[in-house]
Amino acid sequence: MINERVIYLPLGGAGEVGMNAYVYGYGKPGKEKLILVDLGVAFPDMDTSPGVDLILPDISWLEARKADLEAVFVTHAHEDHVGAVAHYYGRLGAPVYTRAFTANIARRKMAEHGHPEKAVKVVSPWPKMTQAGPFKVGFVPISHSIPESSALVIDTPKGRLLHSGDFKIDTDPGVGEPFDHALFEDIAKDGVLALMCDSTNVFSAHEGRSEATVGPEIEKLVASAKGMVAATTFASNVARVLTLAEAGARAGRSVCLMGRAMRRMVEASVETGVLKKFPPTVSPEEAKTLPRESVMLIVTGSQGERRAASAQLANGKYQGIKLKEGDTFLFSSKTIPGNERGVIRIINQFSELGVDVVDDTSGRYHVSGHANRPDIEMMHDLIKPQMVVPMHGEHRHLREHVKICNAKGIRGVLAVNGMLMDLTAQTPVVAEHVETGRTYLDGSVQVGALDGVVRDRIRMALNGHVAVNIILDEDDESLGDPWCEIKGLAETGSSGAPLLDVLEEDLSQFIGRSARKLRADDDKLEDELRRITRQSALGEIGKKPEVTVIISRMS
Amino acid sequence: MINERVIYLPLGGAGEVGMNAYVYGYGKPGKEKLILVDLGVAFPDMDTSPGVDLILPDISWLEARKADLEAVFVTHAHEDHVGAVAHYYGRLGAPVYTRAFTANIARRKMAEHGHPEKAVKVVSPWPKMTQAGPFKVGFVPISHSIPESSALVIDTPKGRLLHSGDFKIDTDPGVGEPFDHALFEDIAKDGVLALMCDSTNVFSAHEGRSEATVGPEIEKLVASAKGMVAATTFASNVARVLTLAEAGARAGRSVCLMGRAMRRMVEASVETGVLKKFPPTVSPEEAKTLPRESVMLIVTGSQGERRAASAQLANGKYQGIKLKEGDTFLFSSKTIPGNERGVIRIINQFSELGVDVVDDTSGRYHVSGHANRPDIEMMHDLIKPQMVVPMHGEHRHLREHVKICNAKGIRGVLAVNGMLMDLTAQTPVVAEHVETGRTYLDGSVQVGALDGVVRDRIRMALNGHVAVNIILDEDDESLGDPWCEIKGLAETGSSGAPLLDVLEEDLSQFIGRSARKLRADDDKLEDELRRITRQSALGEIGKKPEVTVIISRMS
Repeated sequence: MINERVIYLPLGGAGEVGMNAYVYGYGKPGKEKLILVDLGVAFPDMDTSPGVDLILPDISWLEARKADLEAVFVTHAHEDHVGAVAHYYGRLGAPVYTRAFTANIARRKMAEHGHPEKAVKVVSPWPKMTQAGPFKVGFVPISHSIPESSALVIDTPKGRLLHSGDFKIDTDPGVGEPFDHALFEDIAKDGVLALMCDSTNVFSAHEGRSEATVGPEIEKLVASAKGMVAATTFASNVARVLTLAEAGARAGRSVCLMGRAMRRMVEASVETGVLKKFPPTVSPEEAKTLPRESVMLIVTGSQGERRAASAQLANGKYQGIKLKEGDTFLFSSKTIPGNERGVIRIINQFSELGVDVVDDTSGRYHVSGHANRPDIEMMHDLIKPQMVVPMHGEHRHLREHVKICNAKGIRGVLAVNGMLMDLTAQTPVVAEHVETGRTYLDGSVQVGALDGVVRDRIRMALNGHVAVNIILDEDDESLGDPWCEIKGLAETGSSGAPLLDVLEEDLSQFIGRSARKLRADDDKLEDELRRITRQSALGEIGKKPEVTVIISRMS
Repeated sequence: MINERVIYLPLGGAGEVGMNAYVYGYGKPGKEKLILVDLGVAFPDMDTSPGVDLILPDISWLEARKADLEAVFVTHAHEDHVGAVAHYYGRLGAPVYTRAFTANIARRKMAEHGHPEKAVKVVSPWPKMTQAGPFKVGFVPISHSIPESSALVIDTPKGRLLHSGDFKIDTDPGVGEPFDHALFEDIAKDGVLALMCDSTNVFSAHEGRSEATVGPEIEKLVASAKGMVAATTFASNVARVLTLAEAGARAGRSVCLMGRAMRRMVEASVETGVLKKFPPTVSPEEAKTLPRESVMLIVTGSQGERRAASAQLANGKYQGIKLKEGDTFLFSSKTIPGNERGVIRIINQFSELGVDVVDDTSGRYHVSGHANRPDIEMMHDLIKPQMVVPMHGEHRHLREHVKICNAKGIRGVLAVNGMLMDLTAQTPVVAEHVETGRTYLDGSVQVGALDGVVRDRIRMALNGHVAVNIILDEDDESLGDPWCEIKGLAETGSSGAPLLDVLEEDLSQFIGRSARKLRADDDKLEDELRRITRQSALGEIGKKPEVTVIISRMS
């Protein structure tokens, strides 16, 4: 007899930071009823995904089993947890459960995609639970860097699971519920089968710092500043936005929010009652009429994003406001690895304007939203699970987290994207390897990361492009010479002659000496013209370009 | 009467880290005799310079005055100081002076470019000086992270200049001469007109650490490691390479150097007598026959470079050697901003192989080669110049350095690339703005950074490419329908039909309703076909591709 089992399958987030999507299932093998926890996006970069708009997890496996999918639960409103919900609602169809603030953000996304807002259902926090097939799921408030983050209690017929979501241990988080040790102990008192645990900051050796430590430092900085002050942080870090605004207000400055995300997040926080008070704000139009020393801007773009407010201000002027000598710009944020170049570019632009930039080198103006190693260990100790399954992290994070568990005598299970784990097996094992991957949102279309579309773009970026054109008559004779158009290649090479002339000459000579049989065969002719073009370019400019061959036949 | 003046003109390195090239001149305005200090390269990245091989400073200004150029002096053998010497020897023609180790490296480059090795002249260090027109130049040994780095004393008829080159203050650098406080005091005792001073680490608040502090830590790590140990650092950091090799040897391990640069640097150090002793090494072929715990690899690729030894090992196997569970990989290096993604990719690959990666998060296994803020200030205090001109740094570094000077009552002069400064004016002023910039080595060809070549490649990477083809007869009638080839674009869009069909249909309809006058005009027809293609693609896939239009006319 085959027994019911509890399965865990990360489709994203386990082996990378971002794009979280974790499947849980209960039932007989292959017949499990499923729920999905989080459905986030990752962000593209020029090195690996130029021109891509968003990176989504590949949900083919889940879509094939959509009849078994009971619900999607979203732990919090960060893009890497909620960003793909609206993109995939049409394909999965399952209702989305989350708390009010996250629902507010998710519904805006649903509306943008023309999906019904009521597909997103607002749940009350623990001890309320939501039934979804064989599962009962409860949202346990937990501190992080966005309002209403939750750990999920997932009760199955074979025991309780705890999915930490992103978290830190902060008993004074400013906005939202403080971390409640007693609550988590209580939840775990009857035993927890598995703790799925955030791993992002596992390499940070020191206990995490409370959001409350940042306020006094920011206040000092703003109070001592002479000219205009502008500060950036993640818009979703509502506690920080409030801290910045209050520091401005206390220093007698009018607060001005710049950037769409900044206004939207504050709006959502007020609408959902997360923010009970916020200093009065002025519009950019008003701000620019005020004395510089009476203005505090709070702006988007802490990661150097090209179109965000910080980059626009660094470029010169944004919404009529121009920073200058004597002003201060504060990064109340950490630069995410990979974003350094963009952030440094902005800092240098501000330097050219004479603006003093303060970043987080000192550690005073920012704290992380994730549990550091001692905090992760405290979570293990509170929950005392039968096993810990590290999640949300690159391979190095998950592996380190497993090592920490093993060193403490807790069973640590390394499961990366695509590993379908049977959590109820004697020893947890990979029951199946599921094909997972990344899907690119590219303009309005989704393309597979391995479809070759983006690979071709990268090749054109590295090698340039030549279009080769030839017209043949019905006797396979060339009508005129082949000719070329180049893009992204030097116009002149080592011979001193135009590259185009060199390519066309080499192609003409080739056609002149080619056999009719070759010219009659589109595929072979194309291959040869490509080969000659690449070889000719290599000799002339030292590069092998991408080549598009267009053969026209007159008949 | 117009007087002789001393001028300073950075062509690279002032406003960026990398690509150093500083012109000094003496004479009547516009008639100055010139010397050049350093001629380095910068490295491309996918964001701004995809496919580019190297970035060189634009030396047009200098080339136009090559008759006045007496010599090139190279402070040390880092690529950002010596890398462009061979590329530009043909255009500048001036002799290159440097110390033996740097000359060894420079001559290899000259040979690769087919230039005479004797164009590089070896000079003895201070107190020897080299006459170059009105200048006398002396190489003063100074500690840095490569052998035989030198500050330059540049004596002019109007006073002494001191060009620090890259430096740190290290009285126990392992390889090469220790920093000699008394020597610098002595050099400055009769007054220094201007100190051109390294600014790279101006934001590091603590005193720099000696290379000597790294050895014991590395030794401990290697001694306690169980399996194979591999370590990476900059090959040119010969002191570090020696430290690593000695740690390996002391732990009873055979040392194996992997990567071309690693072997070349050790070779150059031995040839020039910089390295008097180096533990015996084994080849990779030998290494793989030895027990794992008896091997210490020292490999290239500390910055995550895709083709270097570290990346190859992370990929699986390199020269027959495969790292695995229980082995240790040490980054005895810092990740240069912008290279994080590449380094992290390697760490995760090693994690997947079960290899324990140790990086410099702890600060134990690496020290910087540049002077931190207190060290920079010590240099000011030793030299007591009439003015400090910060160099080698981004704008933010130079500005901070000037601020430090001004706070101490020293005149700080902010001069970025292209600012020709008259150092003998009453107050140092920008006498002229010279056009400077970047030249890309792209394959075997040099292209201007602003020529549009690389811009077109970036656009193809972001937007994809469509080649549009149409053939017209002598009456300007289309022979058949226009057709397209796509590269880097989704094959199917929102309509569900192939993108090619949609584009070709829209183009056909356009041609069908177009006026003959338009079809007769190549430029207008091309513009319209491009416009229709972009619009059609935007509707279908949400992207506006780059378009190459090829119009063929039968006559």
